[in-house]
Amino acid sequence: MPEFEPQNPEYEKAIRESFEKQSLMQTFGAKLVSIAPGEVVIELPKREVLTQQHGYLHAGVITAVIDSACGYAALSLMPPDNEVLSAEYKINLLSPADGEKLIAKGSVIKPGRRLYVCRGDAYSEKNGGEKHVAAFQGTMVAARNKS
Amino acid sequence: MPEFEPQNPEYEKAIRESFEKQSLMQTFGAKLVSIAPGEVVIELPKREVLTQQHGYLHAGVITAVIDSACGYAALSLMPPDNEVLSAEYKINLLSPADGEKLIAKGSVIKPGRRLYVCRGDAYSEKNGGEKHVAAFQGTMVAARNKS
Amino acid sequence: MPEFEPQNPEYEKAIRESFEKQSLMQTFGAKLVSIAPGEVVIELPKREVLTQQHGYLHAGVITAVIDSACGYAALSLMPPDNEVLSAEYKINLLSPADGEKLIAKGSVIKPGRRLYVCRGDAYSEKNGGEKHVAAFQGTMVAARNKS
Amino acid sequence: MPEFEPQNPEYEKAIRESFEKQSLMQTFGAKLVSIAPGEVVIELPKREVLTQQHGYLHAGVITAVIDSACGYAALSLMPPDNEVLSAEYKINLLSPADGEKLIAKGSVIKPGRRLYVCRGDAYSEKNGGEKHVAAFQGTMVAARNKS
Repeated sequence: MPEFEPQNPEYEKAIRESFEKQSLMQTFGAKLVSIAPGEVVIELPKREVLTQQHGYLHAGVITAVIDSACGYAALSLMPPDNEVLSAEYKINLLSPADGEKLIAKGSVIKPGRRLYVCRGDAYSEKNGGEKHVAAFQGTMVAARNKS
Repeated sequence: MPEFEPQNPEYEKAIRESFEKQSLMQTFGAKLVSIAPGEVVIELPKREVLTQQHGYLHAGVITAVIDSACGYAALSLMPPDNEVLSAEYKINLLSPADGEKLIAKGSVIKPGRRLYVCRGDAYSEKNGGEKHVAAFQGTMVAARNKS
Repeated sequence: MPEFEPQNPEYEKAIRESFEKQSLMQTFGAKLVSIAPGEVVIELPKREVLTQQHGYLHAGVITAVIDSACGYAALSLMPPDNEVLSAEYKINLLSPADGEKLIAKGSVIKPGRRLYVCRGDAYSEKNGGEKHVAAFQGTMVAARNKS
Repeated sequence: MPEFEPQNPEYEKAIRESFEKQSLMQTFGAKLVSIAPGEVVIELPKREVLTQQHGYLHAGVITAVIDSACGYAALSLMPPDNEVLSAEYKINLLSPADGEKLIAKGSVIKPGRRLYVCRGDAYSEKNGGEKHVAAFQGTMVAARNKS
């Protein structure tokens, strides 16, 4: 695991402010649980309104949460006055997310000047154990903040 | 565009019933607008609760809706008594989804015995025009219905 | 299918020169068979040295040829004095490439200032018929030519 | 890193025999350097015939080698009398492969009954140092050997 030097001394504040503006994360009930340079963890308690036809968390919900974890992992390494956008990603769904809580971890594997390549993983917590439910890989883009 | 012969004469009913059980699609306010063998269209009016930090539809919402459109495109070609699961997918986000409505179209490009490869596209409708906002490619799996 | 306006009047020459410098395409015996703004076709006769363990064209060969077709489709729309690099791509292998010839078509679906999103498809020609063997989606980057 | 129990006591022999039948790997000059349950490493000395237009290893070559490493990582966990096929994969190219040697490592992250999800990474070795040049994620399929 590489160690990264943040360029923005207030990266944690930048991430918390951006997260609060993401209505979808509030709608889902997701929480930022850990922020480190190049690595962010988000948790989501399972709720009935977020399920697919079998009663498990919908793949789109899992994707949205890992995408946010990776996006903020990338933002932690960007210069001040940048916002983060997702350019593309791929996800493999490994197992049904049938636990009580989803834990999504996003990590930067290659920071660039504008493009940040990330990997993410989601785990479903059930009866105290954890199951790997999704593997994610994608690209985040640094976008100059206009406001 | 290949023409497909459905194996389940009641494929439309199977899709409508499954869609109604997807709580997430109800939570989002998404609607099935067209069902044909190997091709399904879903629409989603933009709502504030589904946005990311810039006020556009969140990438995870766009992904969830295209994923559902592709999943049901695959289900339309599966034998009776099958359910559909997403195995993996990839999405490229082309433009911000800043319109009033999202239109997601999913198409099967290669049906198999268990694996169905699909492509999907999402368009954002704004002031009567349409903009291509996302391109999706992935694999859906036929799973024997246990109930 | 969108129509694109090339920015480089000599895009065809730029592509032919770059293709000739790709040793791998010469090693494979691949040929540029069609160049249009935003769309390039490359063909590859099947040869024993390019196969996997079942005697079909290796997935890596198919990928390399579609990648090149998409890269040159992107280059056709870039300004003069740019080179093209692949940033990322995803491929679904649909059927064994057991024919005598592979035909790979690359198309730009979204040109940007630096990032070009493309889709590609490969077909295997056998006894006069064509079979869809691979579906590709990825991102090409415009890189300022240093030489 | 999970520890896997191989189902085929002769998995190493099965991999070596299959690798020797992959003409492409011989054409490239690739070598199997390590085989363990769920993890395989392949090396490739850089050669002029495998380059793209800037003289670096072609993305398609890198992809082919990581794909093979992941395919054999999956084969190491399959029952006897199975062959492995690639269903789909995604790769992010992180840096030019400008070193003297490419080292590709493939690992199974989720073995299934028929589908094996894998991650792979490639490193370019130059002047004694190693650079991460590609990140790969994909699905391998177990296919009953007909011969």
